[in-house]
Amino acid sequence: MILLDGKSLSEKIKSEIASEVKKDFIDKGRKVPHLAAVLVGEDPASQTYVANKEKSCKEVGFISSVYRYPANLSEYKLLEVVDFLNNDDDIDGFIIQLPLPKHINEHKVIERINPLKDVDGFHPVNVGRMMLNLPCFLPATPFGIMTMLDRYKIETAGKHVVVLGRSNIVGTPISLMLSRKTDKANATVTLCHSYTQDIKKYSVDADILIVAMGKMGFVTADMVKPGAVVIDVGMHRVPASDTKSGFRLKGDVSFDEVSEKCSAITPVPGGVGLMTIVSLLLNTLKASKKEIK
Amino acid sequence: MILLDGKSLSEKIKSEIASEVKKDFIDKGRKVPHLAAVLVGEDPASQTYVANKEKSCKEVGFISSVYRYPANLSEYKLLEVVDFLNNDDDIDGFIIQLPLPKHINEHKVIERINPLKDVDGFHPVNVGRMMLNLPCFLPATPFGIMTMLDRYKIETAGKHVVVLGRSNIVGTPISLMLSRKTDKANATVTLCHSYTQDIKKYSVDADILIVAMGKMGFVTADMVKPGAVVIDVGMHRVPASDTKSGFRLKGDVSFDEVSEKCSAITPVPGGVGLMTIVSLLLNTLKASKKEIK
Repeated sequence: MILLDGKSLSEKIKSEIASEVKKDFIDKGRKVPHLAAVLVGEDPASQTYVANKEKSCKEVGFISSVYRYPANLSEYKLLEVVDFLNNDDDIDGFIIQLPLPKHINEHKVIERINPLKDVDGFHPVNVGRMMLNLPCFLPATPFGIMTMLDRYKIETAGKHVVVLGRSNIVGTPISLMLSRKTDKANATVTLCHSYTQDIKKYSVDADILIVAMGKMGFVTADMVKPGAVVIDVGMHRVPASDTKSGFRLKGDVSFDEVSEKCSAITPVPGGVGLMTIVSLLLNTLKASKKEIK
Repeated sequence: MILLDGKSLSEKIKSEIASEVKKDFIDKGRKVPHLAAVLVGEDPASQTYVANKEKSCKEVGFISSVYRYPANLSEYKLLEVVDFLNNDDDIDGFIIQLPLPKHINEHKVIERINPLKDVDGFHPVNVGRMMLNLPCFLPATPFGIMTMLDRYKIETAGKHVVVLGRSNIVGTPISLMLSRKTDKANATVTLCHSYTQDIKKYSVDADILIVAMGKMGFVTADMVKPGAVVIDVGMHRVPASDTKSGFRLKGDVSFDEVSEKCSAITPVPGGVGLMTIVSLLLNTLKASKKEIK
């Protein structure tokens, strides 16, 4: 069984990015890529995520900035912030950290972002271009999964991929990306969700099983085909008195039993989660190089 | 076995649209909906299709106009035409008839269309909003299939839908639409294509089988589950000396044998094809009423 090690892979890719930043930006006297994040309110998970982004940016030599606002920021003001970031030539890409406070319409804010700076890949233009197989910013988590499959040379063409969960940011886009006509995809994809009548019927047939249900330990060994590749996108905090943080992270897959049956699996933590930030760095690099037009 | 009769259903919906045009537009002194089409070159299939659109517009009381250009029209000039149509307040929606001549970049032209007038639903903004389950113009053929399933009260929630063919205009969008979280969808969808290793393995499990492969007679009875619903999007011209036109239309499904096994099926001709133009009329009505913002 191969452990799909997001930690070492993300470190490797970050060092590749750092080399590129040195060679193609710093050594040539070019402005280095600049990623900005907008954080509204005090959500602890969002704060951790944004802090990790800042740390990763520093590691690869990007400029990173964070725009922090109180939870009572008006939608109008947030749209002004978006306009400001759209027009600031120094900023190559930016993200609006989700979720936003309830009084703000997320879609309205996201559609205000200049698609050429939308490094989260959430703007409908980028989503549409993804479906149409045109150059675009891919959303970070599914892009991270694609990168992981690619780097571990896991064949996808003609394979049956079963995706559990149809969210806009993971399940639906990864199902699209893997069914596209490209040499990194070409899979036969089944997208399952809360209305699927017998999930096991599909999951047990999967050559590659991607789990993004948001249900801790949902996938058990009996649901997995022997030799399958299992990608676990779940992320759940479980209280644990023996850790410094006071909790432990668990995924949507019952790792101990499933790992004995499959050919490759991502751990939680140390799997897909770390690839998400790498995707954001790759998108920012792309934005800085003006590769999407 | 129920014949999913696109002819009578499209007539019924057209008469509903005509009533609405009379009641909400003509009787109130409002400008009736106006659909324009741009036709570049002399492709016979495109000319037939545009002629059918004009005829359908007349039937429901819409204004219809066609902008015809020679095949050697430059891309620059076509973009100017798009700008003109975008800015002409009299025109509610318009379509650029595809395919365009080889020297013109289709994507560039489509992205120039104002998404609020993009009644073909091909602009990335509409495609992205479709995936995100936001208000948008749905592409005509898959929208026609959705309408047909809805009007014939074919349950989709929890059903296994297998789509054969992953084109940008039919297979991929219908797979997305049917897997979305709405009371007209909620299906478990598998998208098959040229790289799928054993199409029959999937097709024979389908509660609803949607065939858009572009291969005449591809689906035979042994590939279909008894009682399945079969939607045939294929359209092939076969020379026939006994018809006035000199040809006969055939689909991707071997109708005679499959129709004996399934619970419902669309004929070719007289099935999905006729629903496509109805979708375009519905989108134009929606554009005229400014329902998408």
